[in-house]
Amino acid sequence: MTPPDKHGTDESPNGGTLVLRRVAIDTYRENVAYLHRHCEVYRAEGFQALAKVEVSSNETHILAVLNVVDDESLVAPGELGLSEEAFVSLGMKEGSAVQVCHAEPPASMDAVRRKIEGERLSAKDFLAIARDIAERRYAKMEIAAFLVASGQTGLDRDEVMHLTRAMVAQGECVRWESDLVADKHCIGGIPGNRTSMLVVPIVAAHGMLMPKTSSRAITSPAGTADTMEVLAEVELSPARLREVVRAEHGALIWGGTANLAPVDDILISVERPLGLDYPGQMVASILSKKIAAGSTHLIIDIPVGPTAKVRHMRDALALRKLFEHVGDRLGLFVQVVITDGRQPIGRGIGPVLEARDVMQVLQNDPAAPSDLRQKALRIAGRVLEFDPDVRGGDGFNIARDILDSGRALTKMQQIIDAQGRRTERLEPGSLVWEVAAEKAGAVIAIDNYQMARIARLAGAPMDKGAGVDLLKKLGDPVREGEPLYRVHAKFPADFGFASALVKSDNGYRVGAAEDVPSVFAEF
Amino acid sequence: MTPPDKHGTDESPNGGTLVLRRVAIDTYRENVAYLHRHCEVYRAEGFQALAKVEVSSNETHILAVLNVVDDESLVAPGELGLSEEAFVSLGMKEGSAVQVCHAEPPASMDAVRRKIEGERLSAKDFLAIARDIAERRYAKMEIAAFLVASGQTGLDRDEVMHLTRAMVAQGECVRWESDLVADKHCIGGIPGNRTSMLVVPIVAAHGMLMPKTSSRAITSPAGTADTMEVLAEVELSPARLREVVRAEHGALIWGGTANLAPVDDILISVERPLGLDYPGQMVASILSKKIAAGSTHLIIDIPVGPTAKVRHMRDALALRKLFEHVGDRLGLFVQVVITDGRQPIGRGIGPVLEARDVMQVLQNDPAAPSDLRQKALRIAGRVLEFDPDVRGGDGFNIARDILDSGRALTKMQQIIDAQGRRTERLEPGSLVWEVAAEKAGAVIAIDNYQMARIARLAGAPMDKGAGVDLLKKLGDPVREGEPLYRVHAKFPADFGFASALVKSDNGYRVGAAEDVPSVFAEF
Repeated sequence: MTPPDKHGTDESPNGGTLVLRRVAIDTYRENVAYLHRHCEVYRAEGFQALAKVEVSSNETHILAVLNVVDDESLVAPGELGLSEEAFVSLGMKEGSAVQVCHAEPPASMDAVRRKIEGERLSAKDFLAIARDIAERRYAKMEIAAFLVASGQTGLDRDEVMHLTRAMVAQGECVRWESDLVADKHCIGGIPGNRTSMLVVPIVAAHGMLMPKTSSRAITSPAGTADTMEVLAEVELSPARLREVVRAEHGALIWGGTANLAPVDDILISVERPLGLDYPGQMVASILSKKIAAGSTHLIIDIPVGPTAKVRHMRDALALRKLFEHVGDRLGLFVQVVITDGRQPIGRGIGPVLEARDVMQVLQNDPAAPSDLRQKALRIAGRVLEFDPDVRGGDGFNIARDILDSGRALTKMQQIIDAQGRRTERLEPGSLVWEVAAEKAGAVIAIDNYQMARIARLAGAPMDKGAGVDLLKKLGDPVREGEPLYRVHAKFPADFGFASALVKSDNGYRVGAAEDVPSVFAEF
Repeated sequence: MTPPDKHGTDESPNGGTLVLRRVAIDTYRENVAYLHRHCEVYRAEGFQALAKVEVSSNETHILAVLNVVDDESLVAPGELGLSEEAFVSLGMKEGSAVQVCHAEPPASMDAVRRKIEGERLSAKDFLAIARDIAERRYAKMEIAAFLVASGQTGLDRDEVMHLTRAMVAQGECVRWESDLVADKHCIGGIPGNRTSMLVVPIVAAHGMLMPKTSSRAITSPAGTADTMEVLAEVELSPARLREVVRAEHGALIWGGTANLAPVDDILISVERPLGLDYPGQMVASILSKKIAAGSTHLIIDIPVGPTAKVRHMRDALALRKLFEHVGDRLGLFVQVVITDGRQPIGRGIGPVLEARDVMQVLQNDPAAPSDLRQKALRIAGRVLEFDPDVRGGDGFNIARDILDSGRALTKMQQIIDAQGRRTERLEPGSLVWEVAAEKAGAVIAIDNYQMARIARLAGAPMDKGAGVDLLKKLGDPVREGEPLYRVHAKFPADFGFASALVKSDNGYRVGAAEDVPSVFAEF
């Protein structure tokens, strides 16, 4: 036999083509390809042990994990199935001819292995890793390897900077026609903490640009985008976003449509289920998104508390330095505020309940949760002081005037109308359980993590009305049998999941008033 | 509404049951569950972001990754699909009632996170991790996290011991009626290195017990089990294995049927595709399998060479100490031999070609590869010296006598007959390409890794006849155009894959005779 020309002896590379078929399975951020076990062209089992294949069609190609199929009705011999996301990302029609070959492991896995060995990686290494991740060359277990390797020995400051830059480079970047584009971000972990929906209208009413892109919840019961969606459209095209911001100076939209630092989304999809959250990854994740969104001035909120992400002041300070170091070198002006993270902010946890809290504050309703109001005013004040014309220390008062005068509410209504008002009125879930105190005393602890999980199992954020409504906060006196909070759900299954969790640990501790922990920090 | 009793308001826990359906997809060591997007009982999307669900039915339950399905013909609303392996491991009939709930992340992931933080883990931690892995509570990305975390800071000697013990505890343990059960194991990485198939008949002919369980290839072109399978049945029940060993003293079977240290198999299924191979994991993996198989005396072969797994003598020595430390504490007598790992052993790479080499050595065929013969005799000699009646230093000569006299061949034929002789005669693949030297000189390097990949892409070990047949070895003079090796394949697609790889790098280097690297070590 003569040596085959280029790739194989057939007309097509590697000896054969398969017919593309869409398989209606959503494999959630992992491409999966389906091949029949008795495919004549390729032997499925030979591929499978190597775990990954490259599927190509003329110019485009994707990588996918291979599953072997024994059912012809799903995928017949001679066909290649692709899961929903894989099908979309290949971008070919059903019935197209595709080839399959053994996927080379992503070349940048070498750098990951060097990181595992304890090496410091270069800017070039991080670029290569980010590119391979963006091109979906990494399986989840490879992403896990990268995350753990960079979490364990830690990334040094320059490595965090390189990673941030590399993540920015893999996506789109928005540019605004202004030298001052304000933004704020909380590192997360505090349920109900919806200050952005107050800060944006206040700052926009002042006339500063604040086009805020937010995330949807992944493992939390609500992201700002989920809550804003109760009131308005949040999935805006880049062109529509520009219109809104031109007219209103502010916006509150979901960042997912804009392809900003997409590598970050992929990393997060592994980080969260693994429960990993390391400073280097966190800083790179947040700053890459902000830089890609075109922000120039940024307030970072680091809540500190016994059940917050950051539990000690020394860790909060170290994290602050890291944000400042990287921000400065990438041309983003970052100011960090350290806040009280001992308990959830406001009363509601879950989109509808949180939106209610926000609107109560904007409407100066006496029932509005005062902690949400105070925190939002403080952050808005700090953002306003990015304005060279605002005197240092005056920000808080200006913010309060804007809120008290109703101008913030007016601005919020304008933003809602500009983005597209939701006419359907959403209500809290109709299955309700009031969870009662088992003894009398004062509330001495509310577990942020547990309250978030209860709201999540109750159905938030998928069911907008699901969640938890807190009736008592830290320090409040309670009588035995008095309700601490309400669980709202729509579906009986979810109601059952949440109730079982409440019974194992209701998230509250009642004790002696003097045992309420003191605030670690307040800016 | 009154608080729901126990788990939910319905008669079934959590509010509803689904009808079990088998989905003919082989997801290769990861349980996958399929739920329709518009399931009335559970909302698929709420589950999906949390990645894992627990599927339960009366007493049994399994964990699975959830995929959301949009095609009713695959899984209808009201049904729950399970992939092949998941279906088998749940062990219920199609049509059974099953419930789904949010899977708690495995509790032992806390220990993994502590390991990531650099902590030393306890025996109890490793037991919990091994149990959760054995029960399939870990997703691949969680296994990757564990592997990287224990690779990066490394496991200390006692941690390796704890891990080994924990892996043994999760599976079956074989016991033999003898105080001396001999075994040998090579750490791998050297293609063609089929010494076990020579050592076992020699040692068994001497009358020592050597019931050798081997693995199949995962990312290599052949495991001992794959090669032995060319000649005999290798999937024997524990009862059949005992019969064979009682009659013949030796056996060469696949270890997969016996459920020996099953955690090891799961770890390897992530380790190999990630290209991770750390000393602690390797030692725990090998020793746990040997202890579970009932071995009492073990020779470990560590090949050292520029493209071997171990590339420096200092690393080989450190690895030797680790094997000895753990072996001693777990009651397994381990002796380590450090061998020449500069190039593949023998000529053939791939099951049929390797089996040919082995039989040539047993038949004292003048064409038999002398390096395979020599290495097998040396290892067999060391094994024989485990016998108290064999004088130190005499093992090699006894082994040679057994081989030269034909007693080893006779024993091998008896073992083959006892296990079940394969009557079908397998031939090397009929698509053949002779890869020629591009210039004259001496062979100064043969890349173990690249030769293995070429054989693998050619179809080994799935196609027994596929692989590579080496015509030149290290130091051999070659003329320009003279064949270095032959590639054998059965399928054109595989032939194309292997040929493309050869063209990018044929794995051989030809240069000046004095540049042949010297042997690092030879026992």
